[in-house]
Amino acid sequence: MKEYQIDVQLSSNLKEKPAFDQLSFGTVFTDHMFIMDYTEGMGWHDARIVPYQPISLDPSAIIFHYGQTVFEGLKAYNTKDNEILLFRPDENMKRLNRSNKRLVIPEIDEDFALYALKKLIAVDKDWVPSVEGTSLYVRPFIFATEPYLGVRPSAQYSFVIILSPVGAYYKEGINPVKIAVEGDFVRAVKGGTGNAKTAGNYAASLKAQHDAEKQGYSQVLWLDGRENKYIEEVGSMNVFFKIDGEVVTPELNGSILEGITRKSVIELLQYWNIPVVERKISIEELFAAHHEGKLEEAFGTGTAAVISPIGELSWNGEKITVNNLETGPLAKKIYDSLTGIQTGVAEDPFGWRVVVETE
Amino acid sequence: MKEYQIDVQLSSNLKEKPAFDQLSFGTVFTDHMFIMDYTEGMGWHDARIVPYQPISLDPSAIIFHYGQTVFEGLKAYNTKDNEILLFRPDENMKRLNRSNKRLVIPEIDEDFALYALKKLIAVDKDWVPSVEGTSLYVRPFIFATEPYLGVRPSAQYSFVIILSPVGAYYKEGINPVKIAVEGDFVRAVKGGTGNAKTAGNYAASLKAQHDAEKQGYSQVLWLDGRENKYIEEVGSMNVFFKIDGEVVTPELNGSILEGITRKSVIELLQYWNIPVVERKISIEELFAAHHEGKLEEAFGTGTAAVISPIGELSWNGEKITVNNLETGPLAKKIYDSLTGIQTGVAEDPFGWRVVVETE
Repeated sequence: MKEYQIDVQLSSNLKEKPAFDQLSFGTVFTDHMFIMDYTEGMGWHDARIVPYQPISLDPSAIIFHYGQTVFEGLKAYNTKDNEILLFRPDENMKRLNRSNKRLVIPEIDEDFALYALKKLIAVDKDWVPSVEGTSLYVRPFIFATEPYLGVRPSAQYSFVIILSPVGAYYKEGINPVKIAVEGDFVRAVKGGTGNAKTAGNYAASLKAQHDAEKQGYSQVLWLDGRENKYIEEVGSMNVFFKIDGEVVTPELNGSILEGITRKSVIELLQYWNIPVVERKISIEELFAAHHEGKLEEAFGTGTAAVISPIGELSWNGEKITVNNLETGPLAKKIYDSLTGIQTGVAEDPFGWRVVVETE
Repeated sequence: MKEYQIDVQLSSNLKEKPAFDQLSFGTVFTDHMFIMDYTEGMGWHDARIVPYQPISLDPSAIIFHYGQTVFEGLKAYNTKDNEILLFRPDENMKRLNRSNKRLVIPEIDEDFALYALKKLIAVDKDWVPSVEGTSLYVRPFIFATEPYLGVRPSAQYSFVIILSPVGAYYKEGINPVKIAVEGDFVRAVKGGTGNAKTAGNYAASLKAQHDAEKQGYSQVLWLDGRENKYIEEVGSMNVFFKIDGEVVTPELNGSILEGITRKSVIELLQYWNIPVVERKISIEELFAAHHEGKLEEAFGTGTAAVISPIGELSWNGEKITVNNLETGPLAKKIYDSLTGIQTGVAEDPFGWRVVVETE
């Protein structure tokens, strides 16, 4: 293995840790952060772990104006044996570079980024909560820092990793949520940035989500931007349906995010010999399946919530209830299996876990 | 008029000004900036003019992750009589609030924002260049500052205005540019954020622009995201074509930015009794018009470049030349008229100019 150089400057003023049994999502951050800079002609340089601190940028920095940025999200878990586990972090680093290409951001060395991520977690290891349902959320992100108002790729970037001990993403936990099918607003379209993990996709989603919440829904179900017909994602998650014994998820088409939980769910279903297919599925087909009594389960998948069952869907003035508004047996089985593998209480037949060495 | 309160803290360390006859675009900034903050429950508060300085944000600030931000761009001109003029700045403030609504950002008081903008320019009035072709570019922008990793609208924002003395946006000046019609990538789609001035649209455009430049083109011509058929914009400008004596520009459809230069060009053409129509126009129709000898002129319109003639268009392996790669008479007439009004050398029959009081 290559020798990697990271300068470590430890905080002399450690924060008080929150009550790990009362964590919410994404509001508390650890004592340290990782930073590395990019300068055209120099490449990535000055990798360092420093006390968690504000980022200072010129007001003309490209990130503020043209949103040239990408990010990732993954979780670290504390096992009963006090081992810290990551879940398929190599997949996050690969996707980060795919996002970089789409946003014309210089690629990172995936092995080094993973090394840096583990080293940062090791420094802040006391922040990995061990209460059930909790984890340490890891947020790597890269953003354009060059002070320049012309529209072109930046010549300077920062790559930052921050850590946040988190509880459940949804206050409802694994309880089914109510979802509105979005008929007007669109998250992404073929040829756009939908399959990159970049800020603009999330910015575009805020209005529909906000409007849906005012109507009493947790999230929206996104339809495709070309025909407003085919199902794409739910909120900021991928989506699965169990129809007549077969599990269906929208195929990757350029506008759907290639979720790592999505990929893992497909591989888990294949391992269990449960029929699973990636294909186009229209909202008409989904509602028709319900009317024929064939829509057995529906759920979202993502790093933050892992599995989020859908209990109710509203579209075109019609409301349908899925599995009597209860968590279905398949969603439960997948949730238990995935979180079991992630937290170290179950076997890991796939080799998905990566241990963080803490000396 | 209402009494507005802005705290002014003048810089005690003024910068050296650049040579105003050698300005490029968006690299040099003035001595001061305007800032105002928003906090949920308090509204917009603490409006202030301060020395130009870095912005410091928590690494978890929503702008870095979910791109909740909007901006505007306009120019101030120094007339021969040393008067400072703005061009339709009220239109920018209206559009800023339309963008705010789409991005779920709290609206600003348009009159106050314009007052603040003028006051900032007055403070930095010595930075408004008077060399021909130069101006003071004004960049108002609003961004989400709350430190929170969940996906929802921020509870905190900053509204900042910065100023930059600029030369021509394109090194080519008013010379015609070569444009590649983009067949794969899409800037925006109906239901998305295309008609809001927000970072994600520009982030989405970088890859196609970057690839086009490598092929020797200045910009790309964007087609619609639903059918990849209808013309939308060129680079980050609106686009006009003169076909058989009539001027055609793509109609506003939700994915096209409602350009203020676009609107002014339409009003100018109507004032001159030159036929102008806003409608769908396909790339096939445009190339067919060229083949029939009817495509007389093509040009982009925007605040930064004002008018940018298109000399060559490449699509599907075919290259066509417009007006012998020369600036057409209509593009020239519009450019001269608009810049004449903007810089105070021509009459302003529309009342588009707004004077900045400097004491």
